[in-house]
Formats: sequence, C-alpha cells, structure tokens
Amino acid sequence: MTVETLFHGIGVSEGARIGRAFVYRPIRIEDALSLKTDQPEAELEALRLAKQRCIEELEQLIEHTAQTLGEEKAVILKGQVSMLNDPSFYPPMENAIRLEQWAAETAVSQIVTKTAALFESMTSAYMQERASDVRDVGARLLMHVKGSGGGRLGDIQEEVILVADDLTPSDTVQLDKQLVRAFVTRIGGKTSHTAILANSLRIPAILGAGDAVDDIQTGDLLAIDGATGEIIVHPSEGTIAGYEAVMATQQEEQQGLAQYATREAVTTDGHRVEIAANIGTPEEAQGLVAQGAEAVGLYRTEFLFMSRSQMPDEETQYRAYREAVEAMEGRPVVIRTLDIGGDKELPYLDLPKEMNPFLGYRAIRLCLDERELLMTQLRAILRASAHGPVKIMFPMISGMQEWREAREMVMAVRYQLEQDGVEVGERIELGIMVEIPSAALQADRFAREVDFFSIGTNDLVQYTLAVDRMNEKVADLYDYFHPAVLRLIKRVIDASNVEGKWTGMCGSMAGDPLAAPLLIGLGLHEWSMSPAAMHKVKQVITSSSREACRALAERVLDMDSAAEVREALQAFAGTHSKN
Amino acid sequence: MTVETLFHGIGVSEGARIGRAFVYRPIRIEDALSLKTDQPEAELEALRLAKQRCIEELEQLIEHTAQTLGEEKAVILKGQVSMLNDPSFYPPMENAIRLEQWAAETAVSQIVTKTAALFESMTSAYMQERASDVRDVGARLLMHVKGSGGGRLGDIQEEVILVADDLTPSDTVQLDKQLVRAFVTRIGGKTSHTAILANSLRIPAILGAGDAVDDIQTGDLLAIDGATGEIIVHPSEGTIAGYEAVMATQQEEQQGLAQYATREAVTTDGHRVEIAANIGTPEEAQGLVAQGAEAVGLYRTEFLFMSRSQMPDEETQYRAYREAVEAMEGRPVVIRTLDIGGDKELPYLDLPKEMNPFLGYRAIRLCLDERELLMTQLRAILRASAHGPVKIMFPMISGMQEWREAREMVMAVRYQLEQDGVEVGERIELGIMVEIPSAALQADRFAREVDFFSIGTNDLVQYTLAVDRMNEKVADLYDYFHPAVLRLIKRVIDASNVEGKWTGMCGSMAGDPLAAPLLIGLGLHEWSMSPAAMHKVKQVITSSSREACRALAERVLDMDSAAEVREALQAFAGTHSKN
Repeated sequence: MTVETLFHGIGVSEGARIGRAFVYRPIRIEDALSLKTDQPEAELEALRLAKQRCIEELEQLIEHTAQTLGEEKAVILKGQVSMLNDPSFYPPMENAIRLEQWAAETAVSQIVTKTAALFESMTSAYMQERASDVRDVGARLLMHVKGSGGGRLGDIQEEVILVADDLTPSDTVQLDKQLVRAFVTRIGGKTSHTAILANSLRIPAILGAGDAVDDIQTGDLLAIDGATGEIIVHPSEGTIAGYEAVMATQQEEQQGLAQYATREAVTTDGHRVEIAANIGTPEEAQGLVAQGAEAVGLYRTEFLFMSRSQMPDEETQYRAYREAVEAMEGRPVVIRTLDIGGDKELPYLDLPKEMNPFLGYRAIRLCLDERELLMTQLRAILRASAHGPVKIMFPMISGMQEWREAREMVMAVRYQLEQDGVEVGERIELGIMVEIPSAALQADRFAREVDFFSIGTNDLVQYTLAVDRMNEKVADLYDYFHPAVLRLIKRVIDASNVEGKWTGMCGSMAGDPLAAPLLIGLGLHEWSMSPAAMHKVKQVITSSSREACRALAERVLDMDSAAEVREALQAFAGTHSKN
Repeated sequence: MTVETLFHGIGVSEGARIGRAFVYRPIRIEDALSLKTDQPEAELEALRLAKQRCIEELEQLIEHTAQTLGEEKAVILKGQVSMLNDPSFYPPMENAIRLEQWAAETAVSQIVTKTAALFESMTSAYMQERASDVRDVGARLLMHVKGSGGGRLGDIQEEVILVADDLTPSDTVQLDKQLVRAFVTRIGGKTSHTAILANSLRIPAILGAGDAVDDIQTGDLLAIDGATGEIIVHPSEGTIAGYEAVMATQQEEQQGLAQYATREAVTTDGHRVEIAANIGTPEEAQGLVAQGAEAVGLYRTEFLFMSRSQMPDEETQYRAYREAVEAMEGRPVVIRTLDIGGDKELPYLDLPKEMNPFLGYRAIRLCLDERELLMTQLRAILRASAHGPVKIMFPMISGMQEWREAREMVMAVRYQLEQDGVEVGERIELGIMVEIPSAALQADRFAREVDFFSIGTNDLVQYTLAVDRMNEKVADLYDYFHPAVLRLIKRVIDASNVEGKWTGMCGSMAGDPLAAPLLIGLGLHEWSMSPAAMHKVKQVITSSSREACRALAERVLDMDSAAEVREALQAFAGTHSKN
C-alpha cells in the first residue's frame, strides 16, 4: 500500500524536502550474545545465504563506487569480498556452528572479534586498519544473518532523506553531506547534536519522530518540512506540488539574504561587531570568506580525531589546520583544542564508561592527563600559525589552575619549536571557553590572564540549569533565555571589558536571530555560528540600534523566566526589524 | 594462611575499628543470561545442591531471627523455605533444564522472573509483596547456583565490618546500623553517597579500596582506620593492641566535645546562629534534642519511599512525619519533598534510564508531573504540622515557575484539608533548596517570594563545576571551597538578607568544622548537618569572632582557587581555635 500517511516529529532545522528514504539501523559486531543452536543445518544455511547477499551487495557497491569515487576507493570494498572468501575467515564460522553448536550470529561475532583482535595485536598501522576492515565486513555479514538492520551510511550513493533511530557524532562524520538532503530520527529534540549538526549544514531535520520511523522503508518517497515537523510518507501528487511551491519560496528568501555576505555587521547607530563561522573540518572553511565570515570563531578539532581508527599524527593535524588557516585568507581562525569524552568517544582512547558523562572526564580534563596528545596538537596548531592568524581556546575550563597549565604547555611547545628552528606565528591569542558556571563566576579573575573568552552556551545552559539537553523528559527546561544564563553572560562580557579583552559566543544562541539584539545590548564582541545563519543575523544587527538593544537587555535581566524574556524579544523583533 | 596483610583505601569517615568482615556481593535475578547446556544432569545436580544450601542457610537464619527479632520476623523467612518446596516453583526449574536444555542459572532466572511477574500482575498489595519475596528467594538460590556472591545484607546478625564493591542508597536503607561497625568498599571516594552516609552515621569507612576487597573473606578479622585508610587483614596481637589504644583515645575526645550539646552556637562577639540536624528517618530524630539540635534542617523523605516495594500511602507518611515532629519537642522540622531520580530509584515508579541522570528527571521535576504523588505527600506533611512547627522545602528548583507551581499545590492541599475539617498548623514556612546554579543566580527574585533558602552544597558544587562527585576520574576537581561556589553562596545569603528571609545550608559543607568560620563570615543563618558533626562545629563557632570571620570571608572570595582558600582556612583555624 502506498497511501499517503502523515506523521509528526519535532522540526529542528527549517526547510522542506522531497526525496527517497534511506533507513539506517547500525549493527555492532559485539551485539550478538552467546547463543547455542540445536539446528546447526539451518544456521549453516542462514550463514551461507547471508554471505551470498553480502557479496552481491558489495559487487554492486564496487561498480558504483568505481564510477563515482574512482578505482582507488573501490579497492577497499574489493578487499572485503576477498575477505569473505578467505579460508581463514569464513570456514571457521561454519566449523563453529557444526562443532560448537553456536548460532550463526554468535559464530560470526566470535570469529570476527577474534580475527580483528589478531590484527589489532600487530603493531603496524596497516594491520590495525585491517582490523577495522574485518569489523566492517563482519557487521555487514551479521546484519544479513540477523535479517534486520537497515543500510550502512557508507552505502549511500544518491540523494536521500536519512531515517534513523539516532545519529551519533561519529555517524555524522561518515556522512556524505552532498547526498543527505534531510534527517528524520526517532529520538532527539531541538538541542541535540543532530539538531546542531543539521542547522550547521543547513539540512532540514525532524527529530523525535518516535515510532513513525518504523513505518518508513528504504526507498519510500517522503515529503518533510523541517519547520513544522511534518513527515509525509508516500505523498500524493497534490502534496508534492504543494511542497515544491514551499521549496521555491524558501529558495527566493535565501537569495534575498545573500546581499548580507558583503555587508559589515554595524548597528544603525554605528556599533560594529564581528560575525564568524563555526567549522568542523578544513573543507568547511572553503568559501566562508565569500559568504561574509570575518573569522572562524570555533574550529572543532574533534572531528579530525573521530573520523579515523587511530590518533592523527602531528603532520596530519598540521595539514588540516593549515588548510583552514589558508582558506580564511588572513582572517583569524580560533582553534579549539580537543573536546572529546562525554558523548564523543574515540575508539583508540580507552575512556571509562561514566554514570554522568557530561559531568565527567572530558576535554581539557582529559588533555591535561594525556599530555602527549595535547602537546602534539599544540605543535600542529603552532606550526599552522605561521600561515595566518591563529588563536587557541581551551574547552571545559572550570578553574584557573587548568587554564594556567594549558597556557604553560603552549609556552613550552613554542619554545621547543623555536629551538628546532620551526616557524611559528608571532602573536597567538589564547583564550578559554566559558561553558562551566564556575568560569563565568570567576570571569573577573580569568580576564586578567586570558586574551579572550568564548561563551559556549550549549554546555553553559546545561550546567547552569542542571538539564541534559538531550534528555526529552527535561528538555523543556533547557532555554538559553533563562535570566540566570543571561546574568552569567553579562558577567563574562563585563569582566572582559574591564580588562580590555574581547568576548565571543559560539553556542547555538549566537546563531539565533531572536537573540541578536539582546547580545548587542549585553555588549558581545564576536558572534560565531553555523555559516547558514550568518546572513539572517547580520540582517537583524544592521537594522537594530545599540541604544534600544541596551535598554532591552537591562529590562530582561530582571525578568523571572525564559518565557517572559522570549516574549520581550519577540515584541522587540516585531517593532525594530525592518522586515 | 592468616598472615597480617596491609592494604590502603581512601579514608572517608574517621574512626578505628576491629571486627569480623562480612562480604556483600549482591546478585540480581535479571543478571543471568540465556545460557543453554549440553549436560543437563550436571545442571540438575547443581540446582539440587543450591536448593539444599539455601534451606540450610534459611533454617539457621530462622532460628537466630526468632531469638533476636522475634517470631514475627522469622515467619517471612519460613515462607521462603515453603516457596523452595512449592510444586509450582522448584519443579518447573528442573523441567526447564531437562526439556529446554537451559543452564541451571538460566532456569532459576526465567522461572523466578515469570513467577514474580505473575504475582505483580495481581492488584492486591499482599500479592505484590509476594513478588518481592519470590525475587528475594530466587536471588538466594541463584547465588548458590553460581557459587559466587557473598552474603545478603538482611543476613547480618552480629557486629561486622561490611565489605562490598559499592553500596547503593537502597542497600543502605536495609542496613542494620547497630550491627554494621564500619564500611570497606572497592569503589567510591570522599564525596560519594557511602561516604556521606558513613559520616552521618558516625561509622568509620574506607572506600576506593580496589582489589584489596577480593582478598577479604566473610569472617576474616579486620582492623581498619577511617582516618588513614589503612585496612589490616588478620591483624597480629600487637596490631590489635595498637588499634585498641587509638580507639580509647577517640572515645575520650568524643566525650570532651559532649559539653557542646547544651551550649548555644554564639560567636565570641555575641552573634548567634542555629545548629540543626539532617535526618533520613523519624527514628533518627529521637534523642536529637538532647544532643543539642535546635531543629531538623533537612528531613530526607525519600528513604520512606525507597525502603518498601510500593508507594507509602498518606497515613503511613503522616505517621512518619508526625513522629519526627513530636520527637523534636516544639523545635522546627524542615521536610524536603521527595527527591527521587538521579541515582535514587524507586522500584514501583518506572523511571527512564538516562544518559546523565544528575542532569535529568528528578525531584521537583518528577513531582510536578506526578501530581498525585506530591499531593499525597503534602497532605501528610500538612497534617503532621498540627503537631509542631513544620517547614517545607522543594528540591532541584531551577526556575521561578517550578517554585510557584509547588507553592500553589501547598495552597490547594491546605484548602482541601481545611474544607475537610482536618487540623493543619497555622503558619508553615515554604522554601527552596538552592542546589542548581540558576536558583542561586536568581536568588534576589526568589527571596521576594520564599520564606527561606537551604543551600544544598553537594549538588550545587557538582553543577557549578560540572563535576560528578562520584566519578573518580574527576573527583579531585570537586571542592566546595572553589571561589566560584563561595560567590554563589554569598549571593544567596545576601539576597535573603535584603528581603528579611533566612538561609540555611544542608550539604556536607555545613558539617565541616573548617568551613564554619567562613560561613559565619558570609552570614549564614542556619547549619544543618549529620548529628555526629554538631558538637565540633559548635566548638569552632563558639571560639570564633564574627568580625574576624567577616574579614576572612572577604579575603577568600577574591582568591583564585580552592587550594588557596583551604590554606587560608587552615591558617585561620590554627590562629583562632581555642584548641
């Protein structure tokens, strides 16, 4: 049946899209339990069939990959076919079913784990990579044995609407952002990572779609609206025509905002602020200058670490940082040191499972322990600073001691490099992320020592209100317009002003047009946001007067609740916006 | 071999003890995987043996319980023996092994789960209780089948030193505090729940003992020192004599402090503050007045909810609250509404598993959703207020909206009760816990509406510094002397003074003698702590001058780090203490 069906989720990133669904349900090789069977023949048959399907699937992929991405990429997939035919890989699985009465899925899981461990125990990087190939082909085989699980992210080869239970940060690293035209997920809400990613990529997204996800199959035609949260499966021709009209209007609006690319962010009474962009990879820096970014205000280096199976060495990091610096053509790039831990895992760093990862061993806490890791990153950053203005900021600073230790490491690395005759930029500003309440509360002390602050609203709100923004049961308490948060922001900006330093903001709040007049009023110096948001924010700033913004800020700081503040901001936008 | 062996853990609660070890390794009935066997005869034999051991163990317990706790308590255990002999319970396990080739532990787990579910599906409270008996006897059987697992908390019948991997809040509810003379656990540190509990019960405790725990068997003689973290297994006669000397000195010191029971907490320059006690059960209120408590500053009602298999009804709650109120003989009792969720679970409330429970669905957030639950509790509290001065405080308030909703519910319940002609205390003060940074940052707004604040330092520090105090990897960052925390405390007290309200403190910091002069200097009105700490804190307060304390507070607020503050406080204690 292909009757049009309407579902609702939480629209977290605007835009309408029509496209085919690609359902992604990841399977991990460790998932299979220790299951015995009393029907080994049936299990053997299931295994044989799964192998055959894997090979068919891989051959199709190989052909397509060779055509689109080149022969080199296809070779990796050919290696997986050879592996399935390797006498040391597949036959042991059969034996395990015959001799040990294991169920097929247990046999796959055990042999794959053992084989991968063997490769991992070897020291060469080549063999280590093989371990990850073994796991990869093993997961594919397991998926077919279980007959469950949707496709794999690497298999996406045409434009799709990605449908999944959830997307982890490491999933999103693998995404081909050209092909994925929208997200629909079962869980998550306005403030989850997937929402932030979707906003930053300008990809429409609907999260929290719940069981609707179960009613979508790979290949189904979908029409979705990221503004309203509407998901239509098997849209009728009339629905499609309606969606196409909406999409045309949206495109026009985008084009109207494009003029702001070349305009400065100056208020009607002549106060100028800086508009910068957040990036996760050096490729994202390409074209930013043309889009009107005056700087990169946040370069999230963790994606460089998450997209591979082992630590990137100094040279690899240097090349990435240098590429971003060069793309910005002389404009500053603020590089944040590794912010890993919490919900962002690294497969090659054995991090402990934590009861409350957001209150745990992450970012600078981990980097000050793993000194070699931080040293290597700082060397790479300092080398890149020879190619253009670089600033460094440290995440998750909760006390002065952490900041001072980090600063000393930069000094030590600079000294080393200079001793070695390596070129380093002359003056590198050092700053801290203000995302823990204690840092905001001690901003006056920090301001004497740092060159700048960057307020990370996402975490700051989370800790100030004790709300995990990914937890749907309490997500309605998460709001950056809570007056307590605004008071902390004011405190930080005021403290930086006293010492002649500057304050930036790189959380979601900076990209919210509604927040812009308030932030002007509070005196924020630099806004860093997803490139997609820059033009709209510039439009708001250029149509506001600083005096009116200051009066607005003063008023809302004394309000009781986020709801009241939001109302005041909406009223302000209605009165002061040119549009 | 019984050679004396020395281990080290983290001493978290002072005091030396000599005693026999009781090793506790809980087993949960859900732990057994789905395991098949190809040797059913061996599994049947293992099951038979386990059943026999259970019955022997239960018979011993029954005899002992009848002698010490009376025939009534022994009846429950007799019921468990009958259950083991019941044809609907044990024979199905044998069948499952024979017919389904399940391993013995799987058979136990499956049948017990099924039987318990059957009881649980019935509506009568009696049948619900039976479900918990089934699980209990099932866990005992499973323990013997697996041949692992130490004793059960309910089996403790003489004075012991309790040795465990960890103790959950619900474990500690079951403890017979008279018999457990000390704790030794594998994990945990200075700020974990077990540490807080040990301090409050005045029980010496060593946590974070690691693998040392594996070298201790039930019945081993131990000598432990909660001050140094020393654990001596099989102490020699010389060691025992040394420990006995230390214990004698400690007892003398305690007696020296006893004079403070009848003294008021007045500084040398005549400033009087209130010293109150934290309690978890009404029994703990008995004798508090004689020990010098001027109030109960925190009655943690969650223990009443955690120690049973279903929600306590209004009558049960009323009796408990009334008992505490009457025990205090006219002195105030501050009752905190249910603070559940996070790491405190209720078996009969189906709470979601959360990624960051400390930033999740807890306390007032849950109670404002489960209105029936909060209404019932408020009815019981208001009825108890007819018997003595009662104050109510709400935990985990992050914004004004929550406070106002909670206050309205009190009003509604009062109106209801008055309509029903039920007697209620005339004036009941209402306040909030300040344990989320946003509440502290908006203290000026709250102070206009609440009657009092109570600062919960344990959580406040956790959120302000983004540190889970139970996570050993970051526990060294957790410190209530962090200047950012002190600034928040000052802000709250100052705000309450402006509006003529009072501020108390009920976290660990209130019971720390080192913190007392600083808190006097900041202007704190009420201290609530474990009864064990009251005399020492009174000693410090009565030997300090408010003027000197104020100068001290002013100085430390501008310091950079907790370490500096601690040093200043230690120097102050050295100069100003009479001892």
